[in-house]
Amino acid sequence: MEERTIRLDLCSSRKEKPKTQQLEFGRVFTDHMFIMDYSDELGWNDPRIVPYQPLSIDPSAMVFHYGQSVFEGLKAYLTPNGEAQLFRPEKNFHRLNRSNSRLCIPPIDEEFAIKAIQQLVALEKDWIPDAEGTSLYIRPFIISTEPYLGVAPSRHYKFIIILSPVGAYYKEGINPIKIAVENQYVRAVTGGTGEAKTGGNYASSLKAQESVAGKGFAQVLWLDGVERKYVEEVGSMNVFFKINGEVVTPALNGSILEGVTRNSVIQLLNHWNVPIVERKISMEEVYQAHQDGVLEEAFGAGTAAVVSPIGQLTWNDESLIINDAKTGNVAKKLYDTLTGIQYGRVDDPFNWVVKVEENCEMGLRASV
Amino acid sequence: MEERTIRLDLCSSRKEKPKTQQLEFGRVFTDHMFIMDYSDELGWNDPRIVPYQPLSIDPSAMVFHYGQSVFEGLKAYLTPNGEAQLFRPEKNFHRLNRSNSRLCIPPIDEEFAIKAIQQLVALEKDWIPDAEGTSLYIRPFIISTEPYLGVAPSRHYKFIIILSPVGAYYKEGINPIKIAVENQYVRAVTGGTGEAKTGGNYASSLKAQESVAGKGFAQVLWLDGVERKYVEEVGSMNVFFKINGEVVTPALNGSILEGVTRNSVIQLLNHWNVPIVERKISMEEVYQAHQDGVLEEAFGAGTAAVVSPIGQLTWNDESLIINDAKTGNVAKKLYDTLTGIQYGRVDDPFNWVVKVEENCEMGLRASV
Repeated sequence: MEERTIRLDLCSSRKEKPKTQQLEFGRVFTDHMFIMDYSDELGWNDPRIVPYQPLSIDPSAMVFHYGQSVFEGLKAYLTPNGEAQLFRPEKNFHRLNRSNSRLCIPPIDEEFAIKAIQQLVALEKDWIPDAEGTSLYIRPFIISTEPYLGVAPSRHYKFIIILSPVGAYYKEGINPIKIAVENQYVRAVTGGTGEAKTGGNYASSLKAQESVAGKGFAQVLWLDGVERKYVEEVGSMNVFFKINGEVVTPALNGSILEGVTRNSVIQLLNHWNVPIVERKISMEEVYQAHQDGVLEEAFGAGTAAVVSPIGQLTWNDESLIINDAKTGNVAKKLYDTLTGIQYGRVDDPFNWVVKVEENCEMGLRASV
Repeated sequence: MEERTIRLDLCSSRKEKPKTQQLEFGRVFTDHMFIMDYSDELGWNDPRIVPYQPLSIDPSAMVFHYGQSVFEGLKAYLTPNGEAQLFRPEKNFHRLNRSNSRLCIPPIDEEFAIKAIQQLVALEKDWIPDAEGTSLYIRPFIISTEPYLGVAPSRHYKFIIILSPVGAYYKEGINPIKIAVENQYVRAVTGGTGEAKTGGNYASSLKAQESVAGKGFAQVLWLDGVERKYVEEVGSMNVFFKINGEVVTPALNGSILEGVTRNSVIQLLNHWNVPIVERKISMEEVYQAHQDGVLEEAFGAGTAAVVSPIGQLTWNDESLIINDAKTGNVAKKLYDTLTGIQYGRVDDPFNWVVKVEENCEMGLRASV
């Protein structure tokens, strides 16, 4: 049992914080960041909080060539009485280690990573914005840094956590968005990396996104890569359809990301006795449900946007208007409850919230 | 028509060069590198040759999170009379721009990129090793550097060329290698990024590679991601089978990399009147050909290894020994001819070779 202390190197002057109404997503970063190194010889070592600064990385580092990288996304929220809290961070680090496994990256100590976030967020608490819908976005990521051009797992990595005060992900907020069903490009396929949160999945999605962005669509809806028939996910969110009183979401199949918000939505629906089923669902079935007048709601769910109602779904140049392009009752209740729990405004029956300790011990110790 | 000059910032002292017999692949880099920046406002700008050095990149740079990167691989060879030359570099930069298109990266000026390589290689000519099978590996790559966590094409990039003196890619040289057919993991699928040379394809391949490396296999043979039936490529090479006198290679289908060596092999076989066909070929057909005694040769083809005979192909725990695990005549002749042309030892009937100008003008100008 080794004791691990986070070394501190604090910056001498603080940056100016952006005005709340000017907050975008992921453009401004706080004063400090967390870093930890990995080498085959030392394992994960030298955890430290240092001033936010550029990384100095060899041009032959594997991350630039062979894309061996993983990341997570979560948020810190300010409660009405000024406390900082996290939402289910253990789910993120559990998933990070699953992504690590798929990408041949050595696992991290999940408990230690959460403590590192606690300490970093406590230090940067002044950066958590307090306006409605704003939060401090937390981006843990791992990159491969061995200076070597062979195609093989790297023997050096960096695990980094950066923080960014953010406004709402969609400018539209909880207003319904327009989604285009993607027929040409494929995000992921079983046997690939679709259930891992790794850079390549996002790089491959850009082309489809670009092709519809000019037409007023916020995201694309991905179909499976084999039959091009079954719904997988929406852009960077999982997707749900309410059909004839029952909520349906695509079952996890190896090519769909296992979202933390997805899991929370399922638990809440079960808690409320709203029928929810995870199964294969084809685009044809969604289309038919709309034709039959029983497609009552559709919405995406993810950390960045929480819950995003889908007001219009365009497939092969035919546009389905869902719920009169208005936010549905289930989406609204999920959004209100999830954000209510996240911001500490309503009860937390599942113990999802993790408080950030005000006086987080600077000489943090964790077993490794 | 703008004139573009490559700025020079030469290092004051040269590094020690590795001994020829100690050369590995991609571990040692030369004294200088080429860099050019891109911004939406300026386009590609400030081309420069500078001392090889770490890159200073913001931790929020998109390449670390969303994998938007592409690369190429080619080599500079030393001829018997001491001249440096390249092999079909225009093919690499044509492909780089196709990769750019798929990854939403702005195109580069292909002609200018080749001139940049010429100038860099001329400057580093002393680094080209002269022993049999050695060369100076050239790695052009583009990374997305905008400091922004939104999932969207970056608005800043760096195009970089680094050089590495290399020995043979496989320690076995032209000796036959063992390959395992991959049934669990998938490299790419139509609609994905398989025909682009982008990091994510290589990141996703590591797990399969790792699972067979301990069992003595050099690489895996990938099957298609839809039916898991058709041969796609071998590790980082295209693949060829000689069946009953005819050479067969998988047709380009959107998920297979269009190799420069693949193209050269096809041209050479046509030139020699050896039957060569590009078509779908199933693993079942390869297996059956072996059972029938007509699978005469199998080999991979790629820049790093040139031509690699496959002596053993293992599929579902059954091992096919091909050509008594010896190098076949076609593979040998292709290897000898390709390396002969590359090293300037034999005639170059296709004008594939591009000489590196000895006194490459330092104030290089190109139209952009």
